[in-house]
Amino acid sequence: MQNNFKNIGIILKPNDQSVTPALDAVARVLHDHQLNCCIHHTNHQARNSSLPARSFEEIGKDCDLAIVIGGDGTLLHAARKLAPYGTPVLGVNLGRLGFLADVSPGEIEPRLQEFLNGRIDIEERFLLETRLTGHSQSAQTLLALNDVVLHKWELARMIEFGASVNGNFITAYRADGLVIATPTGSTAYSLSAGGPIVHPSLRAITLVPICPHTLSNRPLVIESDSEIELHIKTEDVTYSMITLDGQTRIRLEQGTHIKVKSHAKPVRLVHPVNYDYFDILRAKLHWGSQNSI
Amino acid sequence: MQNNFKNIGIILKPNDQSVTPALDAVARVLHDHQLNCCIHHTNHQARNSSLPARSFEEIGKDCDLAIVIGGDGTLLHAARKLAPYGTPVLGVNLGRLGFLADVSPGEIEPRLQEFLNGRIDIEERFLLETRLTGHSQSAQTLLALNDVVLHKWELARMIEFGASVNGNFITAYRADGLVIATPTGSTAYSLSAGGPIVHPSLRAITLVPICPHTLSNRPLVIESDSEIELHIKTEDVTYSMITLDGQTRIRLEQGTHIKVKSHAKPVRLVHPVNYDYFDILRAKLHWGSQNSI
Amino acid sequence: MQNNFKNIGIILKPNDQSVTPALDAVARVLHDHQLNCCIHHTNHQARNSSLPARSFEEIGKDCDLAIVIGGDGTLLHAARKLAPYGTPVLGVNLGRLGFLADVSPGEIEPRLQEFLNGRIDIEERFLLETRLTGHSQSAQTLLALNDVVLHKWELARMIEFGASVNGNFITAYRADGLVIATPTGSTAYSLSAGGPIVHPSLRAITLVPICPHTLSNRPLVIESDSEIELHIKTEDVTYSMITLDGQTRIRLEQGTHIKVKSHAKPVRLVHPVNYDYFDILRAKLHWGSQNSI
Amino acid sequence: MQNNFKNIGIILKPNDQSVTPALDAVARVLHDHQLNCCIHHTNHQARNSSLPARSFEEIGKDCDLAIVIGGDGTLLHAARKLAPYGTPVLGVNLGRLGFLADVSPGEIEPRLQEFLNGRIDIEERFLLETRLTGHSQSAQTLLALNDVVLHKWELARMIEFGASVNGNFITAYRADGLVIATPTGSTAYSLSAGGPIVHPSLRAITLVPICPHTLSNRPLVIESDSEIELHIKTEDVTYSMITLDGQTRIRLEQGTHIKVKSHAKPVRLVHPVNYDYFDILRAKLHWGSQNSI
Repeated sequence: MQNNFKNIGIILKPNDQSVTPALDAVARVLHDHQLNCCIHHTNHQARNSSLPARSFEEIGKDCDLAIVIGGDGTLLHAARKLAPYGTPVLGVNLGRLGFLADVSPGEIEPRLQEFLNGRIDIEERFLLETRLTGHSQSAQTLLALNDVVLHKWELARMIEFGASVNGNFITAYRADGLVIATPTGSTAYSLSAGGPIVHPSLRAITLVPICPHTLSNRPLVIESDSEIELHIKTEDVTYSMITLDGQTRIRLEQGTHIKVKSHAKPVRLVHPVNYDYFDILRAKLHWGSQNSI
Repeated sequence: MQNNFKNIGIILKPNDQSVTPALDAVARVLHDHQLNCCIHHTNHQARNSSLPARSFEEIGKDCDLAIVIGGDGTLLHAARKLAPYGTPVLGVNLGRLGFLADVSPGEIEPRLQEFLNGRIDIEERFLLETRLTGHSQSAQTLLALNDVVLHKWELARMIEFGASVNGNFITAYRADGLVIATPTGSTAYSLSAGGPIVHPSLRAITLVPICPHTLSNRPLVIESDSEIELHIKTEDVTYSMITLDGQTRIRLEQGTHIKVKSHAKPVRLVHPVNYDYFDILRAKLHWGSQNSI
Repeated sequence: MQNNFKNIGIILKPNDQSVTPALDAVARVLHDHQLNCCIHHTNHQARNSSLPARSFEEIGKDCDLAIVIGGDGTLLHAARKLAPYGTPVLGVNLGRLGFLADVSPGEIEPRLQEFLNGRIDIEERFLLETRLTGHSQSAQTLLALNDVVLHKWELARMIEFGASVNGNFITAYRADGLVIATPTGSTAYSLSAGGPIVHPSLRAITLVPICPHTLSNRPLVIESDSEIELHIKTEDVTYSMITLDGQTRIRLEQGTHIKVKSHAKPVRLVHPVNYDYFDILRAKLHWGSQNSI
Repeated sequence: MQNNFKNIGIILKPNDQSVTPALDAVARVLHDHQLNCCIHHTNHQARNSSLPARSFEEIGKDCDLAIVIGGDGTLLHAARKLAPYGTPVLGVNLGRLGFLADVSPGEIEPRLQEFLNGRIDIEERFLLETRLTGHSQSAQTLLALNDVVLHKWELARMIEFGASVNGNFITAYRADGLVIATPTGSTAYSLSAGGPIVHPSLRAITLVPICPHTLSNRPLVIESDSEIELHIKTEDVTYSMITLDGQTRIRLEQGTHIKVKSHAKPVRLVHPVNYDYFDILRAKLHWGSQNSI
């Protein structure tokens, strides 16, 4: 073994019994390699497991690798939590291949072997960092790996809001909302809203208005080291919310302004050595099996 | 005068009498500032002018600034020709404001004064460089500031072609063609074909399939230091052509492959000091006059 | 006077003082023509008016014409309320020309004169009729002139729902919602969600998924005498609502199913004799002023 | 046997050896049912066949049913040719299921049995009829089952053209072209150009501009008994062509105007009795296998 990797943390999709076989397979492989193994404590499966239970903080501080067993949603959550610690994250998908959880359960052993042998492909993906000013949660730094979405909530009609980049006013939108996406998120909600696919190696942020009233309000791609500010019209702000990675929702309050920029610490994704972004794109978007012309 | 700027080249929209008043205005201002002034020789107006006629090569080598009087099309042409020399280019629009020709005839004097005083905003925009292998024009380096477009030509049905980035296969497209656009070109043909708006400060290339058969073949944004290769299906290659900036057309030949990457030497655009990209975007795309929320 | 038109009802945009001059102008014209005139009672302006106050029911039963002063929103509301009575509706816009409120305040006199002289262009527009089964409001028939929109509400992620037409299953959607639009509504929210423009003379209903996960879930246009059924996934139904014409919101309940079809009684819109749908389309969508090639 | 069906014509995809097994299967079934069988003469396979060779005119006049073996392209061609005779057309697909050729080779016997027993589902689909005025082929009536496409040809930039419906000017387009599609064609090129899916039972024509310069120039759906006229800008007309069903190309000439309307005689498609348009849509557009919610 070339590395000193010793401690591996496991994070499971919550409340899903179908993770058990994959968990068993992973635990067996780790045991065979005489690695220390712990499991994230919020998973109720942890109670039935002989593996020690740990918090994200403990996993982040102590583990050399985090293995996430679930889908892209589980990985998004874990990636945000482990970002402060720089822990490499490997995603094992259950069911369909994910954009992020790109290792199938049967591949765990060879992938882990590669990882332990140092033949690893670690890819850094930047996160978005959101601050709310004039809001009861303004002290918090909110992270997102896919997207920060402003959207109307308890309202039949569109909302109005202005957006600016580095202090330069873009435009006043009348729309259902706005998706602010990383390249990682460009194949998620942003794509459904009409945004482009952005290669993960490009440091760019995409702004995609959701069902805009003005048809020429098209998606806009800007540099990742931009700061985006959103000001919602006074009448609409309490009917608006923001959603992070489609998982965390925060209702806005009168006087809330929103600032979004890229976060200093990236997520570190562990990929198989033969990882090819376009392979995944073709598979996920049904681009056909033909691999040459 | 803070600068040693002495020589100014003027390039006119060809075959358009409406340039005359703007030319007169520019010539007067330049004369008042005791600047040497020449005019590009292919313009038939040059014959009626007392200004000396020069080639692009001479303007590029001798002039401190090129003033292009016309529209975005005239500027695209001049920018490609002057790119090897690094000559700053200032675009004076006739009629509607352009994305590139963003100075109106009445503003020439203050803009020129600013320029002579060194209060200039020069923005670099990268060009695309296309090489055709297996083609009778393969020795040529073809430049484009907006876009390189592969498209079907004398054919009722779609063409098939494969695209790859840095040797990684993206997919096999069945489409009318593909737009490969710079950020500068993102508001031109690429936008009509469904591509996003890309801020000029982002070093990115956008690939937009034209009317693709597979609906999930969405626009793709990649790093500008990528090399894109296109391979057209044998049966379709002679029915295909490439177009540069919507101006130059080249029919492909049996065996032609296409390689596109960013060109080493950028175009240098001279902007008014109060230049704001989003101002132009709002004006050109009818995003409404409201400038705050 | 060729007609026996005697009674005119006036409906005003609520809570908007800017209707006063237009109301005065209309009242003067009606008085000059010795027409009886009443005003809808919910308008608080009615209190300050010497005109008698009437309910929609009274206006519907007694009036030969309803004049709506406001915008498209005010007209949508009045048209739904007056549909059972077949009362012709004429829309006077305040501010910008509307798709429906297509008479400007200055044109009221000639338009009314035309109407009284029988030179009228009455256009019938069909409404959608929604019934909710398994819902506390299931006894109600809900009308919409523009659209019935199913959409997620208090939920970060997409909802899942199946749609069928005349008992034939279309597909299971994962989306933010679905717009079911009349031709009248095709230029409203449906257009923002990606739907086509449907000419008002075509008896068709458009189904437009909002931000669908599957990119090939494109807008679908069907016959207007179809019955559409929506079944929302059990987990998502209480997080979903329907909105009628962007004005009325109804939260769904566990077990609610939705049935939408065209309503038997149309709205009757009074247009100027020189009314041209494409004129309005060009003006509203900034299609340029050029009116020939 | 309930019907007097005696004569069946077979039309094959030209120049494709893969039709042979399907042809053999069809011929065997027809022989078993003691039906007379002929084959369209332009198919080079006809030379090797013992079946008598016939023209489209002869098949149209003499046959009770035409069986087309190939794909949607072969069926489009045959349908146009047989439309004047009202001959029912059944499409046998080779390879993937088509939108029109919706019977697989293995189903031929049961489908034919159904047909002979009178349990047939014949669906009428209207064709578009194009007339060119001021053109050397103006005497011809040009038919299309999918679409009539106006598009630029030997030109780098967009073309300009005006469109009108029943004499009412729609707008002046600057675009690569315009797709005029039947409901049948709404899932073909029109869909790639951004058009909606139009159910075949709706009598509607869709106009979809191809890559329009004005982003709000969205697809337009109108009644099928409209007459559409296109006038191309004088400078662009000789660089433009029209394409019928993606198969027949006609270059325009100086002074050519284009008139398109629905054709009086429909195509008669024979479907399996369990035919479901949405089944085909789901399969062709990868809408997922889930068939309920």
